[in-house]
This record gives sequence, structure tokens and C-alpha cells, in this order.
Amino acid sequence: MAPWNAATPGDAIADIDTPALILDLDAFERNLERMAQAVKGRNVRLRPHAKSHKCPEIALRQIALGAVGICCQKVSEAAVFVDAGVRDILITNEIVGAAKIRHLMELAAKAAIGVLVDHPSQVHELARAALQADTPLDVYIEVDVGAHRCGVRPGEDAVHLADLISASPPLRFAGLHCYHGSAQHLRQPQDRAAAIAGAAALSLMTKQDIEARGIAVDIVTGAGTGSFIHERDSGVYNELQPGSYVFMDRDYGDNQRGEGDVAFEHALFVLTTVMSGPAAERAVVDAGLKASSVDSGMPTVWQRPDLHYLKASDKHGVLKTDAGAALALGEKLMLVPGHCDPTVNLYDTLICVRDGKVEALWPVAARGAVL
Amino acid sequence: MAPWNAATPGDAIADIDTPALILDLDAFERNLERMAQAVKGRNVRLRPHAKSHKCPEIALRQIALGAVGICCQKVSEAAVFVDAGVRDILITNEIVGAAKIRHLMELAAKAAIGVLVDHPSQVHELARAALQADTPLDVYIEVDVGAHRCGVRPGEDAVHLADLISASPPLRFAGLHCYHGSAQHLRQPQDRAAAIAGAAALSLMTKQDIEARGIAVDIVTGAGTGSFIHERDSGVYNELQPGSYVFMDRDYGDNQRGEGDVAFEHALFVLTTVMSGPAAERAVVDAGLKASSVDSGMPTVWQRPDLHYLKASDKHGVLKTDAGAALALGEKLMLVPGHCDPTVNLYDTLICVRDGKVEALWPVAARGAVL
Repeated sequence: MAPWNAATPGDAIADIDTPALILDLDAFERNLERMAQAVKGRNVRLRPHAKSHKCPEIALRQIALGAVGICCQKVSEAAVFVDAGVRDILITNEIVGAAKIRHLMELAAKAAIGVLVDHPSQVHELARAALQADTPLDVYIEVDVGAHRCGVRPGEDAVHLADLISASPPLRFAGLHCYHGSAQHLRQPQDRAAAIAGAAALSLMTKQDIEARGIAVDIVTGAGTGSFIHERDSGVYNELQPGSYVFMDRDYGDNQRGEGDVAFEHALFVLTTVMSGPAAERAVVDAGLKASSVDSGMPTVWQRPDLHYLKASDKHGVLKTDAGAALALGEKLMLVPGHCDPTVNLYDTLICVRDGKVEALWPVAARGAVL
Repeated sequence: MAPWNAATPGDAIADIDTPALILDLDAFERNLERMAQAVKGRNVRLRPHAKSHKCPEIALRQIALGAVGICCQKVSEAAVFVDAGVRDILITNEIVGAAKIRHLMELAAKAAIGVLVDHPSQVHELARAALQADTPLDVYIEVDVGAHRCGVRPGEDAVHLADLISASPPLRFAGLHCYHGSAQHLRQPQDRAAAIAGAAALSLMTKQDIEARGIAVDIVTGAGTGSFIHERDSGVYNELQPGSYVFMDRDYGDNQRGEGDVAFEHALFVLTTVMSGPAAERAVVDAGLKASSVDSGMPTVWQRPDLHYLKASDKHGVLKTDAGAALALGEKLMLVPGHCDPTVNLYDTLICVRDGKVEALWPVAARGAVL
């Protein structure tokens, strides 16, 4: 870990050391409120994905505003949130391997835990562990509704798994996980709507096939920040899992907004300093790819359309500066990360700011929890 | 941080939880030895770059095998190594900002510290702080010898800075930093040789220009894993800074080896588990972009040419499997990361293995030290 923090509460924003991960608390709180409003009275519940923020302070605020619990992606990530007092977690992943299942059952003894399956052998392993621990476990079938990553095919394969789970107490068949990841960043709103219409149709067909066996399908869960209004309005999904909306990032900002889409704000930034140059057309900042993840492309420079973040090396970012761009050595700039999740995962601390000052430091407590 | 480790010493490799960052100790030790041999009797000293490993256990072994000290890229990174007992560190970066300079001077009171400059205002700020602290500081001029990132132009601008540093005790003008980063991954050996021939010529010219002013240029430092034999043999450079050679990665592995190039081995891996599928042509592993950095492209699957890591999302990797590839759910695979530095920076612990067992856990103590 870094041997010191970039700031302490009470510091002026101008005095924060760089690079630092900054949360604009006003924008963040507005984003939380916008999501709470977007699901209110819609017969759908919110279970935000905590893989985006990995921060218990944020999860507890989401739950205080009405979320039923959170999603995590890893067992060790969920353990951090259980320790922080979260009592209802869906791990949106298949759990394979003896060590993982042992840790999973320890969590399930302390909190309501759900997991996904997409293969009979996973059901067998989970059932054996749950029986041995005498601990109930919610099991969801992951259905491939378009992302073509994990998940069984819609229809018959899912019915087979539902039969198997229902016959394997103390496992409890909880529903279907129908997340369409690749729909989230389709740039045009009509493309996102069409992708989710397809996903909802496959989800509904699968749900009906399982119900035809006399097995109840309580929950159909999915959705992300890019598409959630469509799952919300589908009449099929009754739980939503968006994560990035609390922060937003350049990649989500590049989506064209359509009718009904919610105008979330950028609330997450990487504060950086010009540490070399500026020369004609070029300046170098102290935030490279260990400060702002580049897997979804380069960051942008907040409110500086005359500056263009061209390329990142480990610890440097090279900016192209437009003719006439005023920029001084030592000047601080705010970057909008290309992708919020892996950027947050680089830092141990979120520097929370409001009214020009550092208000709080929030630990990114589940950073690096990949197991 | 992850609430538990992927393994404990004595565990069989097969029992390591995944994803986990694995160091093959035999291959690693051979790499250290190869580098020690490559510089022996060559009138050039080795100062390996610790930004690649961020691990004091490794730095101390490099020094024990003859390195004069290490390079770091950040002040906070250097602080971790000073705390671990390293007493000679070159921070290969311009240090801009009051907080950074304050921490820098605290380090310089405890160890021999060098830093780079490429602008007169940096010299003024460092001189003021060094005077106030009454602490000497080695200052190197960064010269742009081809990377076009930081650094002054060769020749006159460097002479001007050398004059200024020499006139600013307790700063000590220590030499030239002439690192050609973009030469490291030129695929063809003759292209790397030509790039470094150009860098060496510019370095020599700048050195001679400064010496013509009666100012000694003790050190010309630079080089990386891809090019270091050329700096070594240049007659201009007398210090080398390679970092990745201890681990290697897919990107370095893609360089074509030429005459004289040293055959370093892959020693760093990400152990991963098949957690969904395998279906026809596809399997999903539990190591995505939070387990293996993709900034320099996808990882490869070690000793499995029939498996192709196609794409990474946050926590999943999608493999394309050749027809007939034998692969089972729960099977563990070793990935060779695309880029070692940012991959190591995702983990808090290196799982060190030998003879089929976990031999040690080494903290990645400077992980996340970006300040």
C-alpha cells in the first residue's frame, strides 16, 4: 500500500497530492438519488453492483436509499462487505473450487448469500457443501441472453438445472440471472433497447419453461448502468444490478442518451499534475495506466476540451495540447477515467471532496479481492 | 485488500486459490543470475527498476547479486524500499509539487536519493527544499533521446540545466538520464540496435557539451529489458535500469531475439480456473482484467497452444479453444500476463513456488504507491 494518503480531511482540493482518486460527493449523492427515483414505484428492486466501487461506505448508502442488498463478483469481495455489515449479497458468478466453496459457506452462515450456476457439477458441489454445513444457499441459474460469456442457453438447459437445484436442499432455487453485459455500451439508445428486448424475451421464455414444471421463479435479475431502464420496464426483470451509475466514466459518457435514459453525472476523477513540459503541443501528467485504467480507452481531461490525453505508460500520461492552450508546469487537472471499475481497483482510498475541501477518506476496502 | 491469501507456504500448487499471482522461483533466480552475468566485467553498473516488481524481497536479492541500488518511479514507492533497507535509489521521474518534495527530502535524509529534472523551475524548487533541509540530493537531467515523453532536448537545453544544478548546492549534478522507452518493444533486434545507437549518440553529444563547460558527467543511465545489451556495449552508458527481466511477460516474449540478446524466462504467471464451460470452442476463466492487465494486449495460456485468451472483462477471461482441446470445468491454467508491471500492481502478494509447492509469500509492498 501507499505509505501515506494523498490528503487528509480538511485539506483544500488544491493541496491534494497526485495522482489521487477523487469522489465529488455532491455529484455522487445526486447519482444515488437519481437511481432511487428511477426504480421507485416500478415493481422492481435495486441490488447495485459493488464491484464498481468496492467500498462499504458506498454500499451502506445505497442500502439506506432502498437497495435490497448488493451484488459482488467474488467470494472474497463479498466477505469484505459482510464484515462491514451488509447482510444480503448476490455473488454474480459461478463458484468453482474447494477453497472458494469453503469460504462461501462461511459467509452463508453469516448473511443471505446467493450464487450463480451454469453447469450441473456446480450444483452438485454446492449442494454437498451446503448439506455438510447445514446452511441454506440461494442459487440462481445464469442464462446467456446475449453476452455469450457464462450461462446456459435459454430454455431446456435451464429447466434441467432448475430441476436439479430444486431437488438439492438446502440449496434454494431463487431465480434467473439474465445479465446482458455487451448491451451496456452500445452507443445508440435504440440498439440498447433492442438488445434488452431480445434478452427479456429469452428470459421470459426460460422463466415460463421452468414454471411449466411447477417450479416458481421468484427473481429475474440483471441490467447495468447502460441499459437498466429497459430491464426495469420489461415486465420480466424484477431486480436490477447497475454499478457504474454512482461514478460514471468516459466509456459510459460516450453512450448517446435516449428518451427515458437517466442523466447520471461524472462523480469520479483522477486528479493529476503536469510534471513535464508543457512544450509545443505536448505536456506530461503524473497519472499513467497505474492511476487510470486504459482497458476501455484513454481518460479525458475534465472541462478542458483543449487538452487530449493521447497515451499512457505506467506512470505517465502524454497530453496533446491545442494551439493556445494555457497550461503550466505543476498545474492540476481532473481526468475522467475510461473505465471506473478497474480504476477504482488501483487505489486503497477514495478522497471525497465537497465545497473545495476534502470531506472524508473512504477505504476501497475490497480492492484487490479477486479470490 | 483481499481478506485472505490464495495460499500458505507448504500448500501444493494444485491447491492455490485463483486467480493468484505466481512467481516460479527457479526461473526467477535464473533470470537474476543471467542479468548479473550479462553486466559482469563490462564497466557498467546495474540499477534495476523496482517499478516492475514493487517487492522489497526482490530488490534485496538484486542488490545481493551486485546491483548498486534500485530505480523507483515515485516518491512513495521509494519510501517503501527505504523502509525495507534499500539505501540507494534513483527516482526516475520529475518531482513536482510541494507535498512530493517534502516527502522526497525526508527520504533523502535517510538514503542516497537521486531524481530527474527537465525544467529550470524543478531545479529551483528542489534547491530550495534541499537547502532548507540541509540535505544533499543527486540530480540527473532527463534527456529525450527518442521516447518523446519527458526530458529536455539533447544539447544546449541540457547544458543550461547542468549549469543551473551545479550552481545550486546542496544539489549535486550526478549525470544524464537517457532512457529510450519506446525502443524496448521494437520487435526486430536490428531496430532495437538502431534505436539505441541513435540514443547513445545523442547522449554522448550532450555529455560532451556539458563536459566542455568543465562540468563532470559521472553517470549516463538508462536502458530496459528489451534493449540493455546495446546500452551496455555503447561505451556511453555506464548504468542500466532494466526491470521486467526478473519476470518477463507476453509483450517482451513477442520480441524477436537477436545475437547477444539474453534468453530470460517467463517467471511470472497468473494462475486461473476454468469456471464456466467448456463449451464448443469456448471456456471462461476466473482471471479478467482485474487479475491480468490488458494494456499491452491479452495474456497467453502457458504451454497450451490450443487455448487462446480472446478477451477480458473485469473478472472473466474468455478462451477460444481449438477443436479437440481437452479442458475440464475446474481445471487450472497458467497465464503469461501481457504486461508484468501493471499486473503485479493488482496484487498484494506474490505466491512463490518451487518443486510443486508454495515456498513463500512475498508482499508486493509498494503496490498502489502512486504518489
